[in-house]
Amino acid sequence: MSRVAIIGAGIAGLKAASTLHAKGFTQVKIFEARDRIGGRLYTVTGFDGIRKYDMGAGWHHDTLCNGLFDEEAKLQENDGSSAPFLFDDDFNIYIDKDYGRVDRHPEMRLEFIDREVEKFADMQYHQSLDIPDTSFYELIIKYLFQKKNFLSDEQIRYAPQICRFLELWHGCDWKSLSAKDTYFGHQGRNAMVLNFDVLVQRIARNFPSNWIKLNTVVNSITRRNNEVIITTTSGDTHVVDYVIVTIPQSVLELSLLDNKQLNGRIEFNPPLNEKIVKGLNSIHYGSLGKVVFEFQKATWSAESSKIVTLAQSSRKFVEIVRNSTDISTLVKDLSNLDNQEEEDCWKHPFYIINFEKINGTPSLMILTQEPVSKYIESLNNDYNKIFQYFEPILNKVMSTFNSGSVVNGIDQDVSESGNHAILKNIICSNWSSDPYSRGSYTACKPGDDGWYMIVAMNEGQDSKIRFAGEHTVMDGAGCVYGAWESGHREATYIAEHTTL
Amino acid sequence: MSRVAIIGAGIAGLKAASTLHAKGFTQVKIFEARDRIGGRLYTVTGFDGIRKYDMGAGWHHDTLCNGLFDEEAKLQENDGSSAPFLFDDDFNIYIDKDYGRVDRHPEMRLEFIDREVEKFADMQYHQSLDIPDTSFYELIIKYLFQKKNFLSDEQIRYAPQICRFLELWHGCDWKSLSAKDTYFGHQGRNAMVLNFDVLVQRIARNFPSNWIKLNTVVNSITRRNNEVIITTTSGDTHVVDYVIVTIPQSVLELSLLDNKQLNGRIEFNPPLNEKIVKGLNSIHYGSLGKVVFEFQKATWSAESSKIVTLAQSSRKFVEIVRNSTDISTLVKDLSNLDNQEEEDCWKHPFYIINFEKINGTPSLMILTQEPVSKYIESLNNDYNKIFQYFEPILNKVMSTFNSGSVVNGIDQDVSESGNHAILKNIICSNWSSDPYSRGSYTACKPGDDGWYMIVAMNEGQDSKIRFAGEHTVMDGAGCVYGAWESGHREATYIAEHTTL
Repeated sequence: MSRVAIIGAGIAGLKAASTLHAKGFTQVKIFEARDRIGGRLYTVTGFDGIRKYDMGAGWHHDTLCNGLFDEEAKLQENDGSSAPFLFDDDFNIYIDKDYGRVDRHPEMRLEFIDREVEKFADMQYHQSLDIPDTSFYELIIKYLFQKKNFLSDEQIRYAPQICRFLELWHGCDWKSLSAKDTYFGHQGRNAMVLNFDVLVQRIARNFPSNWIKLNTVVNSITRRNNEVIITTTSGDTHVVDYVIVTIPQSVLELSLLDNKQLNGRIEFNPPLNEKIVKGLNSIHYGSLGKVVFEFQKATWSAESSKIVTLAQSSRKFVEIVRNSTDISTLVKDLSNLDNQEEEDCWKHPFYIINFEKINGTPSLMILTQEPVSKYIESLNNDYNKIFQYFEPILNKVMSTFNSGSVVNGIDQDVSESGNHAILKNIICSNWSSDPYSRGSYTACKPGDDGWYMIVAMNEGQDSKIRFAGEHTVMDGAGCVYGAWESGHREATYIAEHTTL
Repeated sequence: MSRVAIIGAGIAGLKAASTLHAKGFTQVKIFEARDRIGGRLYTVTGFDGIRKYDMGAGWHHDTLCNGLFDEEAKLQENDGSSAPFLFDDDFNIYIDKDYGRVDRHPEMRLEFIDREVEKFADMQYHQSLDIPDTSFYELIIKYLFQKKNFLSDEQIRYAPQICRFLELWHGCDWKSLSAKDTYFGHQGRNAMVLNFDVLVQRIARNFPSNWIKLNTVVNSITRRNNEVIITTTSGDTHVVDYVIVTIPQSVLELSLLDNKQLNGRIEFNPPLNEKIVKGLNSIHYGSLGKVVFEFQKATWSAESSKIVTLAQSSRKFVEIVRNSTDISTLVKDLSNLDNQEEEDCWKHPFYIINFEKINGTPSLMILTQEPVSKYIESLNNDYNKIFQYFEPILNKVMSTFNSGSVVNGIDQDVSESGNHAILKNIICSNWSSDPYSRGSYTACKPGDDGWYMIVAMNEGQDSKIRFAGEHTVMDGAGCVYGAWESGHREATYIAEHTTL
């Protein structure tokens, strides 16, 4: 009877175990480095013990073709055992530091420029194969240069900052994002999950709980004849017929390094095959972060659950674009404009989820990208420093929506007055400093090509050493359902290649 | 020296003549049935002798890849000889008869359903080849049936009516539109042209004006050896080496009928080839109409230039969808719901261009689709009847934007009072009853496939009898720039296959 090891108890690993159990496998072990299951599905509880937030993945994406969503929706109808979800797509509210709201502006009509830039990118790259990739930033500058005669000053000034909203999907700054990869299609609406812990537990109930070994860090995988030998940092050795490696791409890539002491690194014997090496060298990893601000009550009144604060822009930027005569000088002149200030929250766009609109919870969740996400993690949960960093953003949001400014009530009691928003708690994700995630999910930097990695992961190291996770799928890449399907894929592969 | 005849002085014919002249041809004739050039580019003047409207095409579409737009934009910069244009993409305002405005509604979020239906259609047809085409209406019903558990009552009620906005792009009712063909991509923003007469005249200035023969109706085209013999209804015969037939597809298809007396029909000897016959039998023609309402002054205050009034919907519709258990019964039940009323302006969506926002002209232009467009034409410019038909729609728009109701001041002087909108004039297009257009432009009904027609038109009747026009191109089909490029294409073809 085939023995299977699964490395990682994230959604891919749990689904693989669930599928193996359904197919009659009995000798399965899941090695999980952390003290909990779920991986990058991670639900935490707020200061009042009631509010809950997903600090990792938060949505069912592509709900027109999302198999996990379909399964959940059916369960919701049948016995209510699904994780509750709601369709939360909403109109982005864009807030500029100086101008205020610029969304759906009757004169600027920035959303149309945003859409045109998307089409411009599409025409650059998808209608021709020989155009070299650039950063998303350079693509936007190219658009501005070519189309400036058809753009108003306000459009030149604010539209690029609106386009940057996509930084908060990839977890990367526009200057490090691949222009080829920035835009992607949505296959239907998104459904926010409230919360993913229910889903994780449901899937984990589909197989014996003693299959899961928490706090168990695998450090080597050796192929010997028809067997695979796995060792852990505590010195245990496990001999199996198959292994499904579901660790994040960011952790897998440590295997390419010589330093064997790196936390989470797995030594492969023989080393990872050539295709996998090429795949890992053709792709990067993003760093999306989440910072939750919990308030005593909602003093703001935004009509949408999606608020985007824009990076500050200047008239000088418009002037430089207007006066440009060639694109390379323009790029140079703009880069001189950039490097004048130090780290400041108005240098980046932020995506703020307004839970008050979603489910009446008086909390705002700020999504952050590299480099901000790593900077915030470096503050080591020092609430005062984190608050200090975001205070100008938060106060701008508050004043835009008729609230008084934010008062820090985390460590002291503050009495309600002047419609001030009383801050009670801050919750930060730490995906980048966490050695078992080292970031958020796959991302493409200029020149990357995710195709190699996906093909290599699908083929596996060999017939016994297999891979699953969000970085191993084409449809649903970076998404919960993609990871879930990949776990099913590998379990099915093993079932088809073995006898029980 | 090659002799060329061009049938039709629309943009395709004019561009063909312009290109032939540039290439040194001197023996060129353009036969135009009407008493004017421009074809479906047709600019008229308003009641005050100042306002102007394009009753045919009105926009440069796809401005990221529109060669005619690029040429015009360059001229605008150089010597100002272009037709003025402005980017007028704007946020649609949706008005329901009973509910009022439903655009950007914070709870209904209908625009997201609209987008999801587009993706649903895409997934139905573009990811699989063996799904039979249906009407756009049936596609939407299918979506509602499959997704009703994820839609609110308001979304089931109003979203289908918002989707119907596309009727006003194709000129067809949702029940006669091909679901496969309803959605199409926009390659960049649209630029409204003010007005196309300037462009028509500019292109006509590129070749000798005596090439154009107005009021000349061609009724036969005969291929004899290496020559083509053309006769007109006045009995003239012209012998040429090449002919470019740019008459609309709707007029060309008359050649398939036996009745030789039909106005505009051309008898081809030998008859149109098999591919062309198949092409004509695989495609239809839409009937977009325009009705301009000119007011004394603007009493309304819409923040957008795009207003869409929705067809009336009912709670009964929602109930039937909610209670449906299979799709065919649902379709049947809904069709029973439909056939209860007679012709009424609230049975159809309308797209209203608010010129007040665009250029300060106090006029509203209503775009209409079949069957309304033909009904309005049948009223024979009886202003009272036309006003009567649209009065409920106009008054709803007025009340939505803080204006008093519309007062008919066309044939009588009316004094300003109570912020009433004083109507001074109505201008109607007549593209469907005009024997030389017989509708607006190419459209796909369920089961159509436009590909056959485009290929047949590109190949031509033979090496001497060629075709141009909006129905002969893939990129820019139905658009001014597509017709313009096709004229250039055929002139270039002739130049490459002949000696001067």
